[in-house]
Amino acid sequence: MTILALDAMGGDHAPDAVVAGAASLTLETSGPRVVLVGDGARIEAVLRELPHDRARLEVVDAPEHVAMDAEPRAALEAHPRASVIVAAELVRDGRADALVSAGNTGAFTLACARTFARIPGVSRCALGAVYPTERRRGEKEDPFSLILDAGLTLDPTADDLVGFAVMGAAYSARISRNPEPTVALLSNGSEPTKGPAAIVRAHERLLATAGLHFIGNVEGTDIPKGTADVVVTGGFTGNVVLKMLEGIAETVMNLGRYAYRKSLRNKAGLALLAPAVKQLKEVTDWEEYGGAPILGFDRVCIKAHGRSSPRAVRNALKVAQKAVRSGLCEAIRLGLQGGQGSLPPD
Amino acid sequence: MTILALDAMGGDHAPDAVVAGAASLTLETSGPRVVLVGDGARIEAVLRELPHDRARLEVVDAPEHVAMDAEPRAALEAHPRASVIVAAELVRDGRADALVSAGNTGAFTLACARTFARIPGVSRCALGAVYPTERRRGEKEDPFSLILDAGLTLDPTADDLVGFAVMGAAYSARISRNPEPTVALLSNGSEPTKGPAAIVRAHERLLATAGLHFIGNVEGTDIPKGTADVVVTGGFTGNVVLKMLEGIAETVMNLGRYAYRKSLRNKAGLALLAPAVKQLKEVTDWEEYGGAPILGFDRVCIKAHGRSSPRAVRNALKVAQKAVRSGLCEAIRLGLQGGQGSLPPD
Repeated sequence: MTILALDAMGGDHAPDAVVAGAASLTLETSGPRVVLVGDGARIEAVLRELPHDRARLEVVDAPEHVAMDAEPRAALEAHPRASVIVAAELVRDGRADALVSAGNTGAFTLACARTFARIPGVSRCALGAVYPTERRRGEKEDPFSLILDAGLTLDPTADDLVGFAVMGAAYSARISRNPEPTVALLSNGSEPTKGPAAIVRAHERLLATAGLHFIGNVEGTDIPKGTADVVVTGGFTGNVVLKMLEGIAETVMNLGRYAYRKSLRNKAGLALLAPAVKQLKEVTDWEEYGGAPILGFDRVCIKAHGRSSPRAVRNALKVAQKAVRSGLCEAIRLGLQGGQGSLPPD
Repeated sequence: MTILALDAMGGDHAPDAVVAGAASLTLETSGPRVVLVGDGARIEAVLRELPHDRARLEVVDAPEHVAMDAEPRAALEAHPRASVIVAAELVRDGRADALVSAGNTGAFTLACARTFARIPGVSRCALGAVYPTERRRGEKEDPFSLILDAGLTLDPTADDLVGFAVMGAAYSARISRNPEPTVALLSNGSEPTKGPAAIVRAHERLLATAGLHFIGNVEGTDIPKGTADVVVTGGFTGNVVLKMLEGIAETVMNLGRYAYRKSLRNKAGLALLAPAVKQLKEVTDWEEYGGAPILGFDRVCIKAHGRSSPRAVRNALKVAQKAVRSGLCEAIRLGLQGGQGSLPPD
């Protein structure tokens, strides 16, 4: 059985929403075993109010935790026994198979970097994020593409980008059940010569990387279309892209309201469409996929959104379970050996 | 009277759409005088079919032109008398006040760089682009923000970014009639310490730049919202952002269709909304603003979209006229003297 270490104190609605997400998952058949790490008394108090299967829950006490808005380095310094560190150590020591947290992203990343090793061949780690696209994939009509890096490595080298491609493809193949995901580099033109030097060089190397379905460069227009299953870019641009996607749905609706404001006809039309808009919102709902992997460490690390509801936490735990069961870290190791490993140095 | 040199042979629908745009503008009171540069016989043939005021049109023959998909450097080498070069030389020699083209963007930029000087204090030029946002500004309810660089300078230094900010503010103040436009740096977080080194350094310098309404960093979410009137970024990210915006409207509509496909209720709702959707499309219609400035040269240079219709060409000409009349280049020169000029070197 997969065992997941969950930072019960991380998240805007922690520990309540976090514990609730774990509790509900224990009631599902073939769910994981979850180790809740944090303030034992508070966790137990929340659990008392919720239906759960105690045989699949464990509580490990951690006396401290990192606040959501704390400066990561200083916070870990000040709180060496913070829940996120204690949880990471459980994973390092083999008492759990993966780490999940909805807490402070910087502290989570730092705790991973201090506790886990990098997979051989990984020069820099990447934060992956899935986002909804126009395209539907496979039998489950999955609308999601994966983009990485989402903000860890602002200015990657060509080698870093090749590593991101290999890691992203391994993740997409396992989590989206897409056996041969298409991989592309984000650039300012589709031609192989377009972009800054690191991207041009990464393009050359990716063409020579075995075991990847590399389809070349994609442009900004391809992001909402979902032209590629895995979009590889630096953390600066990746962060801007993801935040634009986050803001754009709201803006489209506001723009719509602006145009429709004064017309009865428009009001009637909008009223008729309300259920469809709700449905559309659900398709693009981040809570559905609630977990973002940090790729490159020798352990599975899933970061859930700070705003996570119980449902988002449960989904992040499920993603972690899937990643462990499908051998994500081993797949990345093999991918880097077969692909990047055989390439000449820069 | 303002005189504009127009590359009549540049654009997907040249010379017909280009000449038609100029011809219709000559019928407007207080329009500029336009010099049509290109294949004289073809231009005259198009003019014969169109109402226009000949007193405000002149044709200058250029025996060659650059194809839309040509490699810019090789094309200018092969066609030294191409229409875009001949038109630029008219501006350099004082026979016209500004250069306008809907042709090959690379060739246009190269022709400008070879023919014009940079304004003192400009380290690198920038391509500006306006895009529709959620926010409405001023009495004309202008929805547009300006973003620069849109693709000329992929990896700007801090000095380049400060120059972009000053040039963008000068353009926005003159073209959008927004006397004190807000200026922001695009980054991966709102804190001044966020982002790659060049952005952090540019942030410091912008805080110390006189005459700018610098509001700090903005993030991807702020782009569709229109939080800043002028968004400053490198050409790589700027290009990705603009192309995402281009693709996203289409995707939203396609996603909508996907969700609505099978429901009669949805079809009825969409039918009622059709006029409003058309209206919304017009607000976000690039033909409305059809021209993108190249900022930093000592002459006004306006690039119209390659797909330009007569209306888009006419609007690009109007933007050029406005830029000349309002003293754009002089304003940039003064802005750089007062602002960046007084800053310590990097």
